[in-house]
Amino acid sequence: MNHLGDMPVEEFRRAAIRAVDWITEYFAHPETYPVLSRVEPKAVKEALPASPPSSAEPIDEILDDFERIVVPGITHWNHPGFFAYFSITGSGPGVLGELFSAALNVNGMLWQTSPAATELEEVTLDWLRQLLGLPVGFEGVIMDTASVSSLCAITAARHALDLDIRARGMAGRPDLPLLCLYTSDQAHSSIEKAALVLGIGQRGVRKIATDPAFRMDVTRLEAAISADRAAGYRPFCVVATVGTTSTTSIDPVPAIAAVCQREALWLHVDAAYAGSAALVPEYRQVLDGCAMADSLVVNPHKWLFTPIDCSVLYTRRPDDLTGAFSLVPEYLRSGMDGEIRNYMDWGVSLGRRFRALKLWMVMRAFGQEGLSKRIAGHIQLARQFAAWVDEHPEFERLAPTPLSTVCFRAVPAALRSDTAASAAGGDKAIDDFNRELLRRVNASGEVFLSHTTLRGRHTLRLAIGNLRTTERHVARAWEILTTESARLTSEL
Amino acid sequence: MNHLGDMPVEEFRRAAIRAVDWITEYFAHPETYPVLSRVEPKAVKEALPASPPSSAEPIDEILDDFERIVVPGITHWNHPGFFAYFSITGSGPGVLGELFSAALNVNGMLWQTSPAATELEEVTLDWLRQLLGLPVGFEGVIMDTASVSSLCAITAARHALDLDIRARGMAGRPDLPLLCLYTSDQAHSSIEKAALVLGIGQRGVRKIATDPAFRMDVTRLEAAISADRAAGYRPFCVVATVGTTSTTSIDPVPAIAAVCQREALWLHVDAAYAGSAALVPEYRQVLDGCAMADSLVVNPHKWLFTPIDCSVLYTRRPDDLTGAFSLVPEYLRSGMDGEIRNYMDWGVSLGRRFRALKLWMVMRAFGQEGLSKRIAGHIQLARQFAAWVDEHPEFERLAPTPLSTVCFRAVPAALRSDTAASAAGGDKAIDDFNRELLRRVNASGEVFLSHTTLRGRHTLRLAIGNLRTTERHVARAWEILTTESARLTSEL
Repeated sequence: MNHLGDMPVEEFRRAAIRAVDWITEYFAHPETYPVLSRVEPKAVKEALPASPPSSAEPIDEILDDFERIVVPGITHWNHPGFFAYFSITGSGPGVLGELFSAALNVNGMLWQTSPAATELEEVTLDWLRQLLGLPVGFEGVIMDTASVSSLCAITAARHALDLDIRARGMAGRPDLPLLCLYTSDQAHSSIEKAALVLGIGQRGVRKIATDPAFRMDVTRLEAAISADRAAGYRPFCVVATVGTTSTTSIDPVPAIAAVCQREALWLHVDAAYAGSAALVPEYRQVLDGCAMADSLVVNPHKWLFTPIDCSVLYTRRPDDLTGAFSLVPEYLRSGMDGEIRNYMDWGVSLGRRFRALKLWMVMRAFGQEGLSKRIAGHIQLARQFAAWVDEHPEFERLAPTPLSTVCFRAVPAALRSDTAASAAGGDKAIDDFNRELLRRVNASGEVFLSHTTLRGRHTLRLAIGNLRTTERHVARAWEILTTESARLTSEL
Repeated sequence: MNHLGDMPVEEFRRAAIRAVDWITEYFAHPETYPVLSRVEPKAVKEALPASPPSSAEPIDEILDDFERIVVPGITHWNHPGFFAYFSITGSGPGVLGELFSAALNVNGMLWQTSPAATELEEVTLDWLRQLLGLPVGFEGVIMDTASVSSLCAITAARHALDLDIRARGMAGRPDLPLLCLYTSDQAHSSIEKAALVLGIGQRGVRKIATDPAFRMDVTRLEAAISADRAAGYRPFCVVATVGTTSTTSIDPVPAIAAVCQREALWLHVDAAYAGSAALVPEYRQVLDGCAMADSLVVNPHKWLFTPIDCSVLYTRRPDDLTGAFSLVPEYLRSGMDGEIRNYMDWGVSLGRRFRALKLWMVMRAFGQEGLSKRIAGHIQLARQFAAWVDEHPEFERLAPTPLSTVCFRAVPAALRSDTAASAAGGDKAIDDFNRELLRRVNASGEVFLSHTTLRGRHTLRLAIGNLRTTERHVARAWEILTTESARLTSEL
């Protein structure tokens, strides 16, 4: 280490090649690690010194500790047996993009702070717009996560109300009615969280009931809007979901969009996970109706093989977005403003990593056909797994499987007598059985599934989204599930 | 490219080594590029195809295009002549951390989704807390930017009001008085932006006037609070700044903290830039009084050599932060919750990159002494530059230089007759001179400075924060400034 300055470049090069070699080996064999980390709480913490080093430490010791202390505490999202939450992949081209972004270390807050960061973002997001089949007029911006994208979208929706909330705020205003936001009871928690931040409050959030396939019931949506208007409240935004977190159900966006148009409500679509499926020609219809949305979020870090974080917010009403967020005084506006875009005006964050680079590299390295084939392949694998569940007498699916995630549970014959109770959502024995089954399956180290609750039932979820996952891995998950279920049944 | 799956690992390795070699060369000679990109608006856009590729493209072609199209559109934040905004460095160890984070691609939303991500964050932020001299009890969380950290802090402040805003919101509540937030007229725009998002509105933001050294005037703060209380409003939060964006002035936090304690207001400290200086023993006092703050933000991506993005929010009141944001239903809480931390409950974003890794690598690779020497070195360079300005008859400083940023302007003798007008902030000729001077200096390609407005005067800023910047580069900046100023004067 130089006395003043960064590490010597030759030392950087040597350490970076060590890192690349480690990553290459890791990418070649992620399944040598247990997918779900086995460390006990505080084990990582206790392996580290309680205080920072006073002197510089050799980079090789730091890399040794990375391998020795950090890696065992990693849950391996790269493992082909990772089926939890939404399974993701930071593909090779995406990792290269991240490496260059880290090295360039630009802050893309203004056009001039790196014109390529802004313009590559515009171009890449227009490419993605075309792939998703969204019409011209949808302008995009990259945020870190869908939570923030949706927060910004709903902020724009509130701004579009013309209630002067930007200037006058919401407190101390007897003139302001309760503002109402509508989403389904299957919506992601980030929508409610956005409402909390924005001062809408839980009281202003209507979680519209869903149909048996977990899709927003539009009749109930209309009824809720009417009731709120009758009460003197002010409906302002509907958030539809394309690919809910629990079951990947797809809200009926065309019907919801018609309601929004009639009622003059902002329509935001949370397509964070499932939006990417629209680039598969056979699944383009997942975004049906979304051309009428005011805003839409899709996360390339979820199902477009881009390393976390990369969430894209599209809007047809960029003026409402910048109107809500921009704080550039008039005297700083320049003649160039018509020609260029300053993305700092498009959301909460002033500082902005150069995230477009990784997405651009992924889109080029795979091409539309490559992306499409892989997403279609994941859907195909999920269908296969769903078929196995359906064929098995002691398992059942608990939701349709429109995309790459299967919701199911074990229903051992020995516990079947409780079917009536189960239908009422009260089958504690079956819930406990599945809870223990999941624990044992995840303890295998070969697969990692997560759970949800559907109509009161403890539900297992198998989510496919990793580029390394093949039929062999899905079959192995099924083998472990059925074997452990049989073993657990024999212990009943 | 495999038909299904990621790029073959050997191809990844080869491309990654090409990337490392490019970066090594770049890090060795960043000054071979003009610091401020010279591309015209839309040049990058027009060099790229209007539509995405349908088929996969070879990775080497993508890397060729990166060098050919992207790099010329980069403004080089790594250039030793980058003196704009706040100059930053993504150091070598930090880039390695980013590379590993991208490859591991974990989402650290829950402890179990990678225990090491959560626990390394806890340990690293406790190390940083110790380095900054903050007392035990300050708990940290990493966000992307200070904009988001401050938004979350002020959300917690609003939550701490016990006005039930989480549940009942802010609209349609005649019981709710105007909520007032206090900050200085030198505060960063992110504070006002947070107020917009939170529904405080511009009407609820009090920009307290500053003293001649651009520090918040505490007497005026107290008067504003009294006036608001008398009007029936509800003061709730003061945001003090340690290192303002324009001049790096440091608000009198001890006195502000005393006011906050007496008035029962949440004190948030924006130390995004200058907080890091507290790890230099001689500058520890920059955080004087901050032990009494309720929350404080410091950005390792600003002056702690960590690649963008990495912003740390500390709070002594984590329960108010999680109380504002957590949406985990009671039935999902587990016996393990006492032992572990789920960072998704600590802010807006559910998804979380593994950002602690790069910070950990930086802190170890430099050690406290290494970090301290480099920051002290930057401050020393700024003092040197300030002394040159002070000694020059045709330049003047426009603010004190407490840290590593110098605010100054040229005052050519030929325009001096207007001194009285200038004092009134009306010296358009001097402003125009400095505007043109900045344009010419930045066109050199050797240095990049930015500007601000102080008391109505167009002010040049030279900010030092890059690890590659040495006295030679600062001297060269001064040479270019004085040469161009003389040339411009001769044209008057």
